[in-house]
Amino acid sequence: MGYKKLLTKKMEFSASHRYWNPEWSEEKNREVFGKSAGPHGHNYGLEVTVEGEVDPETGMIINLYDLKTLMNDVLTGFDHKHLNDDNPFFKELIPTTENIARVLWDIFEERLRDNDRCSLYRIRLYETPDLYVDYWRELS
Amino acid sequence: MGYKKLLTKKMEFSASHRYWNPEWSEEKNREVFGKSAGPHGHNYGLEVTVEGEVDPETGMIINLYDLKTLMNDVLTGFDHKHLNDDNPFFKELIPTTENIARVLWDIFEERLRDNDRCSLYRIRLYETPDLYVDYWRELS
Amino acid sequence: MGYKKLLTKKMEFSASHRYWNPEWSEEKNREVFGKSAGPHGHNYGLEVTVEGEVDPETGMIINLYDLKTLMNDVLTGFDHKHLNDDNPFFKELIPTTENIARVLWDIFEERLRDNDRCSLYRIRLYETPDLYVDYWRELS
Amino acid sequence: MGYKKLLTKKMEFSASHRYWNPEWSEEKNREVFGKSAGPHGHNYGLEVTVEGEVDPETGMIINLYDLKTLMNDVLTGFDHKHLNDDNPFFKELIPTTENIARVLWDIFEERLRDNDRCSLYRIRLYETPDLYVDYWRELS
Amino acid sequence: MGYKKLLTKKMEFSASHRYWNPEWSEEKNREVFGKSAGPHGHNYGLEVTVEGEVDPETGMIINLYDLKTLMNDVLTGFDHKHLNDDNPFFKELIPTTENIARVLWDIFEERLRDNDRCSLYRIRLYETPDLYVDYWRELS
Amino acid sequence: MGYKKLLTKKMEFSASHRYWNPEWSEEKNREVFGKSAGPHGHNYGLEVTVEGEVDPETGMIINLYDLKTLMNDVLTGFDHKHLNDDNPFFKELIPTTENIARVLWDIFEERLRDNDRCSLYRIRLYETPDLYVDYWRELS
Repeated sequence: MGYKKLLTKKMEFSASHRYWNPEWSEEKNREVFGKSAGPHGHNYGLEVTVEGEVDPETGMIINLYDLKTLMNDVLTGFDHKHLNDDNPFFKELIPTTENIARVLWDIFEERLRDNDRCSLYRIRLYETPDLYVDYWRELS
Repeated sequence: MGYKKLLTKKMEFSASHRYWNPEWSEEKNREVFGKSAGPHGHNYGLEVTVEGEVDPETGMIINLYDLKTLMNDVLTGFDHKHLNDDNPFFKELIPTTENIARVLWDIFEERLRDNDRCSLYRIRLYETPDLYVDYWRELS
Repeated sequence: MGYKKLLTKKMEFSASHRYWNPEWSEEKNREVFGKSAGPHGHNYGLEVTVEGEVDPETGMIINLYDLKTLMNDVLTGFDHKHLNDDNPFFKELIPTTENIARVLWDIFEERLRDNDRCSLYRIRLYETPDLYVDYWRELS
Repeated sequence: MGYKKLLTKKMEFSASHRYWNPEWSEEKNREVFGKSAGPHGHNYGLEVTVEGEVDPETGMIINLYDLKTLMNDVLTGFDHKHLNDDNPFFKELIPTTENIARVLWDIFEERLRDNDRCSLYRIRLYETPDLYVDYWRELS
Repeated sequence: MGYKKLLTKKMEFSASHRYWNPEWSEEKNREVFGKSAGPHGHNYGLEVTVEGEVDPETGMIINLYDLKTLMNDVLTGFDHKHLNDDNPFFKELIPTTENIARVLWDIFEERLRDNDRCSLYRIRLYETPDLYVDYWRELS
Repeated sequence: MGYKKLLTKKMEFSASHRYWNPEWSEEKNREVFGKSAGPHGHNYGLEVTVEGEVDPETGMIINLYDLKTLMNDVLTGFDHKHLNDDNPFFKELIPTTENIARVLWDIFEERLRDNDRCSLYRIRLYETPDLYVDYWRELS
C-alpha cells in the first residue's frame, strides 16, 4: 500500500479553430457541428499532471521551473495559432477538445519519458471554464 | 492498456431547500442541521462527466449540443425550484448535496444508457464553490 | 486634488426568495417574473466598500476584524433565510437583487455612520457570478 | 443627492480575430502586434451595465429576461465568428479589445435608447480573465 | 459493484515559507530553488475529501459543521504562519506544496480515523489557482 | 461629452509580510493586528488600469507587450519577497494592502508619466479574492 502523489500545473493559451470534416459537404458540417463549424476561438486552460516520488533533498516531485519551461515550449505550437492551419497535428485530425487533449498527451508523454523521477499522469484541457476533457492512460 | 477519455460539461442551477427529517422533532432538526434546517438556497454547479471513445469522423465523444439539450431538459426539474416541495425525488429523501447528486446520477445514467458511444462516468455537484460531492460507479 | 482610497471585503451568504407581487394575480406574477416567481435560491456574494483615510499608525482604512464582525452580524438576518418570510425588510418589498442591495446599503450606511475614519462607499451584490447590482450615493 | 443604481449582466462568447492593419507590411504588423498578428481566439466575457430607477411594482431596473434576450440577439454577430471577416464592423476597424468594446457600446446604446426606465451605463469586455476594457460616456 | 461517494470541503489559509535545504550552500539553494529560496507567501487552498456512506437519517456522509470545525482546528497551525519557523512539521522538511500536502494528509487521516461513517480519501493543496498537489492512499 | 476608455491588466505576485508597528509593544501589535502580526503571505492580484485614447492605427490604448514588460519589471521588487525586509518602501511603512496599493500607484504613475497616449487611472490590489483596495486620483 503506497501513496499517490500528483502535481498539476495549469497554463492558458489562446487559439482559434473550426470543427470541419473535409470529407463532408458544407451542409453536413453545418448540420453536425452547428455554429462550431465556423472559425472561432477560445482561451484554453491546459492542466499537466505528473506523478512521481518526492525528492527528499528538494521536497519536489518535479522542479517547477523545468515544468514551466517545458509547457511554454510545447505551447508555442498552440498559443496564438489557428489550429487547423498552423499546427501540423491537425492536418488530418479535427481540432476538437478531445483531439487536442490527445495530441497534448502524446507530446508531453514523450517529453517526460526520460525524467527519472516522474511521468505524465493526466492531461486536462478546458475549452471554457464549463467544458473540459481528461485524457490519461489506464493501467490494468 | 488503453486510454481514459472523459468529457465534462458544467451547468448552474438555482434552487432552494431545507435540511429536515420529518420523523424528527423541530428541536432535533435544529440541533443536527443547524441553520440549514431553515429554507435557503444555492447556485448549484452540476458537472456531468461522460466516458467513451472518440468518433473518428467528428473527433467527439458526444455531440455537445446533445449533451447541453439533455442537461437543460433534466434541470427543468431542479432549476428555480424548492427541492423539498417541487421535486418528487425529495418527498422521502432529504435534499442534501449527497442525495441530490445521487438522484442526478440515477437520471443521467438512465438517459445516457442507450447512447452507443459513451456512458455516464461521474456526477459532481457543487453546493458552493467550496463544497462539492462526487458520485460514480466503482468497477471492481 | 486628492486620492480615492477604497477597501472592499466580500462575503457569501445563501438565501432563498421568490419574485412575487402580492397585489398581482398568480397569472400576472408568472408572466412578469417567469420561473423566478417560484421559490428558489442563490449563493449571494456581498461586497461592502468603505472609503476613508489611511491611519498612519496602522496603515489601515478600517480594521478588517471589525469589518468582518460587522458583516457577519448584519448577514445573520440574510444567511440561510427565506428572504420573503424571514426578513422583515421584505414584508413589503420584493427581494430582487436591486432591493436587497438597497436594504443592505441602508443597514451598513447606518452601522458605519459613527466610524470616524471611513464611511460606506458602495454595496455590490452578486446574485450569481454573472449578475450583480451596484448601489451607492451620488455626490453632486 | 440621489443614489446610483446599476445592474450588470455578464455573458461569454467565443470568437477569433487577428491584429492586423491592412495598410502596413506584414513585417510591420508582426513587429507591432507580435504573436497577436496571427489568427487566434478567446472566450470573451461581456458585461453590460444599465443604470436606472427601480420599478416599485417589480423591484427591477430592467427585466432580466429582456436583457438576456437582447444580449443573445446582439451576440449572434460575435459568438463563434472570426471577427475580422464575419462581422461588418471590423472591415475597417482592427478587432482589438478596445475597438470591440466601442462597437458593443454603440450597438447596446442604440438598442436601449427607447427603454423608458434605464439606459446603458458601461460596457466591460474581458479578453481573458486578466485583461479587460471599460467603455462608458462621461457626463461633464 | 458499488458507488463511490465523496464529499469535498475547501478552505483557504495564508502562510509564508521559503524553499531552503539547510544542508546546502546559499549558492546551491538559489540555483535549485530560484526565487522561491527567499521568504514569500501564498493564499493556499486546501481541499479535504472524505469517502463514506450516506446516513439515511441525515442524508449526509459527514456533518459539515463537524468537518469545518476540524479543518479550522487543524489550520490554526498553518494559517498566518511562517511555515519554516512556526510549524514543527517543517523543522526537518522543506515546506514545498508536496510536503505540506503530505503533512496535512497525516494529520487529517489520524483525526478522522475514529469516524465510523467516513474516512479521508484525498488531500488537494493549491499553492496558487494554477498549481496544486494531490495526495491519497492507493489501494491495491 | 466624451467617452471614458480604460484598459486593465491583472498580474499575480506572491509575497510575505507582517503587520507590525515598530513603535508599539509586541502586546499592542498583537492586540491591534491579531494573527496578521505574525509573518504570513498571499498571492496578491494587481490590476493596473490605464486611461487614454485609442490609436487609430493600432486600435490600442497601450501596447499590451509594453504594459506587461513594465508590470513584470515593477513586480521584481515585490514578487517572492518578504515585503517588510526586502522592499525599501516598507522600511517605514507597514505593508498593509492599503499601503502596498499606494506604493504601487506612485511607481506606476511615474513610470507611465512620459507615455503620450495614456496615463495611470487606478491601482486595484487583491490580497485575497475576497479583499481588495482601490487607489486613484480624484479630479475635482
